[in-house]
Amino acid sequence: MPSISEKALAMPASPIRKLVPFAEQAKLKGRTVYHLNIGQPDISTPKIVLDRIKNIKRSVIEYSHSAGFESYRKGLAKYYADFGIDLDFNNIIVTTGGSEALIFAMQTCFNPGDEVIIPEPFYANYNGFSTTTGVKVVPVTAKIEDGFALPPIADFEKLITPNTKGILICNPGNPTGYLYSKEELETISSLVKKHDLFLFSDEVYREFCYDGAIPHSTLQLKGIENNVVVIDSVSKRYSMCGARVGALVTKNKEVLDMALKFGQARLSPPTFGQIAGEAALDTPQSYFDDVKEEYVERRNILVNGLNKIPGVVCPKPSGAFYAIAKLPIDNADKFCQWILEEFSHQNQTVMLAPATGFYATEGNGIQEVRLAYVLNKDALIKAVECLEKALEQYPGKVTIIQEAVTHN
Amino acid sequence: MPSISEKALAMPASPIRKLVPFAEQAKLKGRTVYHLNIGQPDISTPKIVLDRIKNIKRSVIEYSHSAGFESYRKGLAKYYADFGIDLDFNNIIVTTGGSEALIFAMQTCFNPGDEVIIPEPFYANYNGFSTTTGVKVVPVTAKIEDGFALPPIADFEKLITPNTKGILICNPGNPTGYLYSKEELETISSLVKKHDLFLFSDEVYREFCYDGAIPHSTLQLKGIENNVVVIDSVSKRYSMCGARVGALVTKNKEVLDMALKFGQARLSPPTFGQIAGEAALDTPQSYFDDVKEEYVERRNILVNGLNKIPGVVCPKPSGAFYAIAKLPIDNADKFCQWILEEFSHQNQTVMLAPATGFYATEGNGIQEVRLAYVLNKDALIKAVECLEKALEQYPGKVTIIQEAVTHN
Repeated sequence: MPSISEKALAMPASPIRKLVPFAEQAKLKGRTVYHLNIGQPDISTPKIVLDRIKNIKRSVIEYSHSAGFESYRKGLAKYYADFGIDLDFNNIIVTTGGSEALIFAMQTCFNPGDEVIIPEPFYANYNGFSTTTGVKVVPVTAKIEDGFALPPIADFEKLITPNTKGILICNPGNPTGYLYSKEELETISSLVKKHDLFLFSDEVYREFCYDGAIPHSTLQLKGIENNVVVIDSVSKRYSMCGARVGALVTKNKEVLDMALKFGQARLSPPTFGQIAGEAALDTPQSYFDDVKEEYVERRNILVNGLNKIPGVVCPKPSGAFYAIAKLPIDNADKFCQWILEEFSHQNQTVMLAPATGFYATEGNGIQEVRLAYVLNKDALIKAVECLEKALEQYPGKVTIIQEAVTHN
Repeated sequence: MPSISEKALAMPASPIRKLVPFAEQAKLKGRTVYHLNIGQPDISTPKIVLDRIKNIKRSVIEYSHSAGFESYRKGLAKYYADFGIDLDFNNIIVTTGGSEALIFAMQTCFNPGDEVIIPEPFYANYNGFSTTTGVKVVPVTAKIEDGFALPPIADFEKLITPNTKGILICNPGNPTGYLYSKEELETISSLVKKHDLFLFSDEVYREFCYDGAIPHSTLQLKGIENNVVVIDSVSKRYSMCGARVGALVTKNKEVLDMALKFGQARLSPPTFGQIAGEAALDTPQSYFDDVKEEYVERRNILVNGLNKIPGVVCPKPSGAFYAIAKLPIDNADKFCQWILEEFSHQNQTVMLAPATGFYATEGNGIQEVRLAYVLNKDALIKAVECLEKALEQYPGKVTIIQEAVTHN
C-alpha cells in the first residue's frame, strides 16, 4: 500500500470534530444538545434568493466564466460601492466560498516557507489553508483582557523576519467578534506599507456590526492598494453557507491575473450558487435590520448571561455572531468533553468549541471557549443556564481572579 | 508592491484562452464561429434535475457534511453498483467537481517532487493541478498511429524512478476519446502492483461509450484496492458542468480519512449542486440512450468527414465526445490562430484547440488539434466543410505521408 503525503499527515483535523461522537452519545441518551459550537446560522435565506432559484429558466446548467458571471461581478461592484468601496468588476474573482478565495490568495502570493502573521485567536481553518499551501502561520496574541483589540504594533514588529510575506486579519472577527476601528486598520496599514507585505482581510461578516459600529474595509486604505486582498463570501451574509460562493477582491492586477489561472484550472465557481448570489444582491435592507436586531438580542442574552456567572469573563463583541469566554476551568478541551459526556441539567447540555483550536501558540486559550449565538433566544437562555450549572459541578473548576476587561 | 509566488508564475494559463481574442475579433467581423474547442455540451440537463431544483423546500441553504449529504453518497453507491462496482457510501467523498477530487487526491497522496506518469495527450488541467500541488508530470506518449491505445508497458517501465508515486489515466479519455480495454487496465494494474503506485483514474465520461463498448472501472481491478482513487463528476454525465459536483472514490481508508481533512477545511461541497446530483441519479435510461445516439451521429459526421479530407488522420473514438486529428499543417497553434484571424468560408470559421496543450513532451502534437463534438449535426457538417477549405488555403500546409491508423 503506497504511503500518503506529509501534507496530508500534517493537515489539522477540525478541532470541533473530535467532540462530535460525545454529542452523538448525549443525544442517544435522549438529551437535548444546544449547539453553540458551529457557525451555521438558523436564520432563513432571503426569500428573493429561493424564489430566483425556483424560477430558474436555464435548460443547460453550464460552466460560467472562471472569474464568475460578468453580471454578478458587476452587481458585486455596486454592492461594494454602497459601502464606499470603489471597484471595477474586474477587481473581483468569484470563488467557491471564501475558502477558495483564501486558498487562491495564498497560492498566488506566498511561497512555501513564507510567513504570515495572524492575530490569534483566529478562524481554525486558516491553519488548514496554510498547511495546504505550505505557508507558516506566525501568531500574534490578542488578549481577552483587552477585549481582543489589535495587539500593539511592537508585538507585530518583533515577529517580522525576512520570510514575513503577509498579515491576515478577519474583520469583524471569527472567533472573537471584535471589530477593528479605523485607527487600528491605519496601524496595520502603516506596518504593511513599511515592510511591503500583503494584507489579506477576511471581511465576510461585514453586515454584522452592532450598537452603531461601522465596518471599515481594508480596500478603503490609501496607499496600500496593491497590498490588499479581500476574502469575501455570501455564506453568513445571506445565511446560505451551502451556496459555496465567495470572492477574491483586489486592485492588484498581477494578483488577479495569477489567481485567475488557479481559477481556470478548476473551471468555474458553482452556477446555482452564483444565481443565488446575484439574486441576493437585491435583498431588502429590512432583512439585514431584522437579522441584526435578532443577533443583538441573542448576543446580549448570551454575553450578559455568561458574565453573570461567577468567574466567567466574556468581552461583548461588536460584530459577527461569536464570542470567546474565559471560564473558571482547568482545561477547555476536557470541559467541552465532560459537559457532553458526564453532565446534564434537566436532560439538556451544551456543545462548545474549545478555544485552543483557534490559537497557534501552545497553551493559549486553555481556559477559553468559543460560542456562536446562532440559536434562538429561548435556546440560548437554557444553554446559559446549563453552562452555569455545569461550572458549579465540573470537577476541574478553578478560581480565577477576574481582570479588567474592555466591554466595547 | 510585494512579489507574487513562484507557483503562480509557473501556473499554466489555459491553452485555449490565448485564442479567445481572435475568436472575438472574427465574431466582430460578423463571422459565425463553430466552437469545437470546448467541452461544454449543448445537451439539456435532465428535466428531473431542474424540476427538483425548482421545487426546493429548504428555507436555509446550509452547509452539508464535508463529505457530502449522506443520502447522496448512498445514492451514488447504488449508482456504482449498477456498473458492477461494489462500494460502501463511506468510500465516497463528494467534491466540488472532479477538479477538487483530483486536487484532494494529489494533496493526499503525493509530496512535492513526486512523479506521476500520465499517458499523453492528456486533459490540460492536469498540468495546473500538478503545479498547484508541486507534483512532477512524467508523460508517456500514446501515438495517434495506434489510435491512442495504451503505450507499451516497457515505455512506462523506462520512466519509473524512485520518485514515481502514481499513474494517472482518463478513461474514456479526454482529449483522445480512447476507451481502455479490460486487458489494458490489467496491464496498468500489474504495473501499479509491481511498483506499489497510486492509480488515479478519471472516469467522468463513463456513460459515453459507443458501438457496444463497455467501460471497465479501475475500482473493479482485484488486488490493487488500496492503490486506486477514482475521480468522478456529474458535469458531463448530466450536462450540468455548472453544478460543480464530483466525487473522490477509493477503498483506501487512510486516503479517505486524510482527504476528508482537506474537505473539512473548505467546509462542504455546494448544496444546490448536491441536490441536483442526487436528483440526477433518477435520470431515466432513455436520456442516456438519446444522448449517446446523438453523440454517435455527431462523431460519425465529424470523424468520417475529417478522414475524407486529404492528409487528415483522425482515429475514431469509442468514448467521450472528443477526437484528436492530425492535419497536414506546419503548426497547429499557428493554424488555429490563422483560421480565426485570416480565414472564412461563407462567412464562417472554426475554433479548435491546438493539441500541443495536451502534450507534456515538447514538440509532440504540433500537427494535431482536439475537436469536441458538442455542436449539433448541421453545425458539425459546416465546421468540417470550413476545415476542408481552410486546409486548402492555409499557407503553412504540408504534405504528410498517411500512416496506418487503428480505427477502433
